[in-house]
Amino acid sequence: MTPLPPPAPPEAGLLSPGQAGSPAAEATGDAAFLAALLEAEAALTRAQASLGLAPAEAAEAVAEAAVPDRFDVLSLARRAASGGNPVIPLVADLTAAVGGTYGPYVHRGATSQDIMDTATMLVAARALDLVLADLDRTERALARLAAAHRDTPMPGRTLSQHAVPTTFGLKAAGWRSLVLDARDRLRAVRGALPAQLGGAAGTLAAFAAYGADDPPALVAAYARELGLAEPPLPWHTLRTPVADLAGALALTTGALGKIAADVLTLARTEIAELAEPSGGGSSAMPHKANPVRSTLIAAAARRAPHLAATLFGCLVAEDERPAGAWHAEWEPLRDLLRLAGSAARQAADLAEGLRVDATAMRAHLDVTHGLIVSERLSVALAPVLGRTRARELLTEAARRAYEDGLPLVEVLRAEPELRDVDLASTTDPAQYTGSAAMLTDRALERR
Amino acid sequence: MTPLPPPAPPEAGLLSPGQAGSPAAEATGDAAFLAALLEAEAALTRAQASLGLAPAEAAEAVAEAAVPDRFDVLSLARRAASGGNPVIPLVADLTAAVGGTYGPYVHRGATSQDIMDTATMLVAARALDLVLADLDRTERALARLAAAHRDTPMPGRTLSQHAVPTTFGLKAAGWRSLVLDARDRLRAVRGALPAQLGGAAGTLAAFAAYGADDPPALVAAYARELGLAEPPLPWHTLRTPVADLAGALALTTGALGKIAADVLTLARTEIAELAEPSGGGSSAMPHKANPVRSTLIAAAARRAPHLAATLFGCLVAEDERPAGAWHAEWEPLRDLLRLAGSAARQAADLAEGLRVDATAMRAHLDVTHGLIVSERLSVALAPVLGRTRARELLTEAARRAYEDGLPLVEVLRAEPELRDVDLASTTDPAQYTGSAAMLTDRALERR
Amino acid sequence: MTPLPPPAPPEAGLLSPGQAGSPAAEATGDAAFLAALLEAEAALTRAQASLGLAPAEAAEAVAEAAVPDRFDVLSLARRAASGGNPVIPLVADLTAAVGGTYGPYVHRGATSQDIMDTATMLVAARALDLVLADLDRTERALARLAAAHRDTPMPGRTLSQHAVPTTFGLKAAGWRSLVLDARDRLRAVRGALPAQLGGAAGTLAAFAAYGADDPPALVAAYARELGLAEPPLPWHTLRTPVADLAGALALTTGALGKIAADVLTLARTEIAELAEPSGGGSSAMPHKANPVRSTLIAAAARRAPHLAATLFGCLVAEDERPAGAWHAEWEPLRDLLRLAGSAARQAADLAEGLRVDATAMRAHLDVTHGLIVSERLSVALAPVLGRTRARELLTEAARRAYEDGLPLVEVLRAEPELRDVDLASTTDPAQYTGSAAMLTDRALERR
Amino acid sequence: MTPLPPPAPPEAGLLSPGQAGSPAAEATGDAAFLAALLEAEAALTRAQASLGLAPAEAAEAVAEAAVPDRFDVLSLARRAASGGNPVIPLVADLTAAVGGTYGPYVHRGATSQDIMDTATMLVAARALDLVLADLDRTERALARLAAAHRDTPMPGRTLSQHAVPTTFGLKAAGWRSLVLDARDRLRAVRGALPAQLGGAAGTLAAFAAYGADDPPALVAAYARELGLAEPPLPWHTLRTPVADLAGALALTTGALGKIAADVLTLARTEIAELAEPSGGGSSAMPHKANPVRSTLIAAAARRAPHLAATLFGCLVAEDERPAGAWHAEWEPLRDLLRLAGSAARQAADLAEGLRVDATAMRAHLDVTHGLIVSERLSVALAPVLGRTRARELLTEAARRAYEDGLPLVEVLRAEPELRDVDLASTTDPAQYTGSAAMLTDRALERR
Repeated sequence: MTPLPPPAPPEAGLLSPGQAGSPAAEATGDAAFLAALLEAEAALTRAQASLGLAPAEAAEAVAEAAVPDRFDVLSLARRAASGGNPVIPLVADLTAAVGGTYGPYVHRGATSQDIMDTATMLVAARALDLVLADLDRTERALARLAAAHRDTPMPGRTLSQHAVPTTFGLKAAGWRSLVLDARDRLRAVRGALPAQLGGAAGTLAAFAAYGADDPPALVAAYARELGLAEPPLPWHTLRTPVADLAGALALTTGALGKIAADVLTLARTEIAELAEPSGGGSSAMPHKANPVRSTLIAAAARRAPHLAATLFGCLVAEDERPAGAWHAEWEPLRDLLRLAGSAARQAADLAEGLRVDATAMRAHLDVTHGLIVSERLSVALAPVLGRTRARELLTEAARRAYEDGLPLVEVLRAEPELRDVDLASTTDPAQYTGSAAMLTDRALERR
Repeated sequence: MTPLPPPAPPEAGLLSPGQAGSPAAEATGDAAFLAALLEAEAALTRAQASLGLAPAEAAEAVAEAAVPDRFDVLSLARRAASGGNPVIPLVADLTAAVGGTYGPYVHRGATSQDIMDTATMLVAARALDLVLADLDRTERALARLAAAHRDTPMPGRTLSQHAVPTTFGLKAAGWRSLVLDARDRLRAVRGALPAQLGGAAGTLAAFAAYGADDPPALVAAYARELGLAEPPLPWHTLRTPVADLAGALALTTGALGKIAADVLTLARTEIAELAEPSGGGSSAMPHKANPVRSTLIAAAARRAPHLAATLFGCLVAEDERPAGAWHAEWEPLRDLLRLAGSAARQAADLAEGLRVDATAMRAHLDVTHGLIVSERLSVALAPVLGRTRARELLTEAARRAYEDGLPLVEVLRAEPELRDVDLASTTDPAQYTGSAAMLTDRALERR
Repeated sequence: MTPLPPPAPPEAGLLSPGQAGSPAAEATGDAAFLAALLEAEAALTRAQASLGLAPAEAAEAVAEAAVPDRFDVLSLARRAASGGNPVIPLVADLTAAVGGTYGPYVHRGATSQDIMDTATMLVAARALDLVLADLDRTERALARLAAAHRDTPMPGRTLSQHAVPTTFGLKAAGWRSLVLDARDRLRAVRGALPAQLGGAAGTLAAFAAYGADDPPALVAAYARELGLAEPPLPWHTLRTPVADLAGALALTTGALGKIAADVLTLARTEIAELAEPSGGGSSAMPHKANPVRSTLIAAAARRAPHLAATLFGCLVAEDERPAGAWHAEWEPLRDLLRLAGSAARQAADLAEGLRVDATAMRAHLDVTHGLIVSERLSVALAPVLGRTRARELLTEAARRAYEDGLPLVEVLRAEPELRDVDLASTTDPAQYTGSAAMLTDRALERR
Repeated sequence: MTPLPPPAPPEAGLLSPGQAGSPAAEATGDAAFLAALLEAEAALTRAQASLGLAPAEAAEAVAEAAVPDRFDVLSLARRAASGGNPVIPLVADLTAAVGGTYGPYVHRGATSQDIMDTATMLVAARALDLVLADLDRTERALARLAAAHRDTPMPGRTLSQHAVPTTFGLKAAGWRSLVLDARDRLRAVRGALPAQLGGAAGTLAAFAAYGADDPPALVAAYARELGLAEPPLPWHTLRTPVADLAGALALTTGALGKIAADVLTLARTEIAELAEPSGGGSSAMPHKANPVRSTLIAAAARRAPHLAATLFGCLVAEDERPAGAWHAEWEPLRDLLRLAGSAARQAADLAEGLRVDATAMRAHLDVTHGLIVSERLSVALAPVLGRTRARELLTEAARRAYEDGLPLVEVLRAEPELRDVDLASTTDPAQYTGSAAMLTDRALERR
């Protein structure tokens, strides 16, 4: 056996800007896991006491001992190696802390995975609550932006090029609808997070051996104690709850990543239609206001799908409890909760302070010399000139507008064939936003 | 421009055993996509006609022309390169096929992505229906197995080692619950698959330009024509429907992968508690009955999480329509539908024909010389001998049972301290299955 | 057993714009795999004949029969299901085609995986040759661009904002260095692709049973026949060759994806410093020149890492031949070869025809009113004014330049403290490109 | 701006059994990164001093101040949020620590990414050295096992079923060859890890502004100071070094995962041909010796491909420095180094203490009643009986051996047609190991 080196220094989040010290990081830290593991142990004894399977004093003794501060998380982490999980040394320490008479009631009938999975669900529940609160802030801020800019025209961009006009209101409403999609999925998952209790191989056999007439009733009592859902079966290798978390968190991070991608584009120096509330400055380059929040969200969105995939892969968990598939879940699930948590926090701050330059948006509608309304002109001129002639004339006018740097409307005004067309209105990009306002209104009705 | 070589030969599925020629492969093949693209185009003109935006004759003309057999899929595939998607050449060919008068009504006001996304949802809907049917077969077969083996004891295995007894009924019931989880999620996703219609930048502007008073009503009519859900907003870059498919399909494939992993373990030559209905034979080795179905499901389960991750990553889709994020979805989504489809088909065949050797299961309970009930003995002997002495005696007895190859019960019978303990019952693994039967019954109540 | 439906229609590449009909797609198609499988079988018999283990006539008979056209790839694909791979039905058909006397020499002593892996390496070798040729075209075109634009200044952009000037020459040289990195890694992998020959469990036992004194010599002869490397050991579950392909192909696709990402940014309507050789047009919007090649490369780069990850995951292949890990490799490896192949083709076309607007690049250096050289001014003014005063003055000047829309140089000219500073040169962005030219020259020396 | 909560408690590795407190975890911890960041800063000033670009006293002052203990890593982690990376607050603190005269020489001309990337390469180099040392231990232990068991026959298993015999020597030699493949790739990557120095946009412009005649010479001096390779170009967005790390580390973890998968199979209760040096015990189940090392390696192997994919995805890094692609690398690269590091450590311990039960291996050769040599019998009997009759007779004999539970050799002895065949030798599995010994010898020659 290789001797262990002296204790590693703590991780402080040096590689996690925006995450370090955040509520989501704290809610998922080792201290939070330790607390949740102890809560699970205490709830187990309490549930047994409530069914007469343990003396009430045992439940009290365990609850009293199960105080995070009394446990050495570094030592637990290191001793986790020999059995492959931190519950084994924790049970030893907790049993010792409870002491003689009631010590044997600690962890009675349970397997390590019962406690670890339950603690993970408690941690997930609390982290999701933080994410949900930040998504709420985000959607409210986006709703305000969408309403305020319901009629703010801007270039609609597709495959990186100006296509036809849109509005910033519709864009913000679209962002919000993604946030609401994420919220709905997270809420559903949050409400279904189950406790775990099955014993060594998921049969609840030890609980019966210790005297339970109806072991499933113990599972129900345990879940009630913890405020988690009662599982229909022990789910040591039926990992739907973890896969559901993976899917909902990947959707959440990706939804916020879409917003960040748009902000990063629209905040580019040449575009500057949007700006972050306050940018990361550079001392050597005072003009640089880096869109740091969007950057950090974008980074989270690059990572989340891979973490979710790791968890989906862990569905393939052999036997009654698996050798590896379970162990591979812990860190990726925590990372995913943190990434979603920090992305949601950044997104809320971003949305609440986003600076919108409607003037720049309007100005950019003219960058293509008016060609951004060429679709509309095709439609409008076809009845007047015939489809073929309309296209011919438009193509030629577009060429001239580009080459001579003239507004398309001026080129067209010179065309005698078009003297009866209301060119001022037909070529005004701000009048070619289609149903953007109606769609925005409708989208904002969603709560 | 590099000149193109002569047509590549068709893909026939040579690298997809079990998928080639399957309903899921066919439902997602190029022919199926071509048909769906044409359905979308026909529905668009029909919807416009239904609102008076096009003559009824135009709708008829498009419907008549939109027959898959008349289109050259190879040519479309190649011509897709210049614009980056197959709808552009398809619209050209369809317009030509409809001809002079009504040709201009083809694809009127739409963008390529409207048609492509809608067709993808149609294809997904049909593929999901196949998957759901096979999951139904699977869950029914597993329900039968669980009921039949409600009381068939077998070793519960954890971290690859025998832990305590379980039953095959509980195992099969657990498998079924995963299948039902997958079914529930797929059904929900299936019911929400939306049509896509937004025009060039999602504002519906061209439809208004062509005369629609209420373009969102056109979206509703279009969705109705296709039997798809009406989307609250154009979702060109709001990709929740695709992400939802990704999550549900990854869960499905993973759930089936769990079953396959168990079958592969339990069908091992040394274990042989399960056997596939009929194995892949080897001419040189007549004894080999390879568990081919489980193998193919296992292979699918290795791939699906990565495909899902690709799709989750595509949530980050910039602008009103993205340059790459959309294009990267097509093949992974099809692959994922196919993998889930072929895994579900294999799983149904596997579950319906699975051969269970209850005798082998019972025999393996004795492989550890009775130590598989050591947990129970610990519980039972502690009150008699005290915890410390009980553990001491058991450890020593276990050592002797292993070293001398004796059943633990015989070693214990020689212990005078245990003369009053009912060793026959306490050491019988078949009597230590806990709540397995009760849990199985309860799980089977779920529909 | 579920009855099979009628043959699925061929895949023509409808969902693979830019890939359909490409050399890389053809080189990796089912026909190419069928041909490679038959080559492997023919080489095996030939190698046996060369060592006196089979009559020369047998080798001739197998070679004569092993003609792709005589085999029904659709039928093989379907019959692959029962044994889990296409070699089993192929051997049956090939044996039948060879007929009575020499039929027994077909596949003699080999296992399906020997033939399948060998064929895969042949296919990979040919696909890599295509990729390498396109990378060569790409690097040559980029070298020309880098040389031509060695001194073309443009904004250096970081975190989406203008930072300090750079040159397009340095950017192109950087792109080229990535392409050369990819080329070097692919070449190394290409040269090491091994044949596979091990027999049922990798011991070469059957070859000895059939009379070989020195079975490893047969492996060497077989590899020689095929122009592949001789493997040190059968690698049925030692999958380094596949993992090496995964890594090199993911690097290649990612390297090209970096180029595409830059082109997509610099081709944006507002920036327009670069344009693709000829854009994907839109009939309704004549001004739109979509950067389709970059879009398709970007899509490939989104997918490749996931496919590589699938293959890295398949390193975990249990036993002497695995149940699933091997089967999960086939399609992802083919997809990865195709994505790299089509991205390389698109990149070569893109690089050869890329349109560079040096005037736009120069103009954008002034978008920040000269602040793009603020770093240089900080350095230059500190000795004159002291660090504190220099920063103070610059910050104030920057504020005024922005607010009043004045060039920074004008604001600074009004400062009496700076009367002795050569502001014309110090504020000229084109004179602040550092070592860009020198780095470009040096990078171009790499061959 | 959301106010920050009180400091999160440290991460101690509670979710990382086997990693917590390990050398690899320590070498990649926040303290190690902080130290490396400071080393990079000190080396930069030293390199500048060595070229006369800074006074020697400045280099000394920075070196003296750059002592990790003087910096508050928690505070740095939190302050990293506003600029998006930890170098910005670190430079502020270091400059303050150096103080008045020489403070301005801190970080002079560099950008945050120069320091961060360089520090990451330093950390990677040290972590790789640990991995390489453990791979060396592993390969030596495997070489010993392969030599010791050169002639130990065991069942060769394919698709989970017994196929033909192999030897444990060949299996161990195969494992070792994978370990050597990993070692070779890691060594090559290790030797090429480059320093990073480019300034704000990779042009080295600020260094020239500060007086350097030949800024690339500064890069060379800086790399020399650090013992890293000199990069041909600044690689802020040319991420080959990171992608190479990703590929080599994924291969390493997968290679060890293959070994773990085999151990997990062969340590199963029913098989028990292998056992881990000392198992993770279970107090309630004294017979359980969980293969914990293999479990933890298997868990690492499930995660590594996804982390590598994240890094390959980050190759797509736009502009001169990207908004997200860079930030998304840090944690996955660290995680990957740690997973490989802890897997290598576990593998070394596992290989050095692996217990091999040659008797069980031999016994399992008879589990199929001798059918494990049916391939050999087919070959041997064909010349005697003709292929058709031989197959017929074997199939019938196999059926009877299975049904009656008789050794195949006995069934065959009763066949008068076979009276002249040396059945004792032909049916002895231990004599049908083909070239296993020869292959083992040859593989062990590799160093």
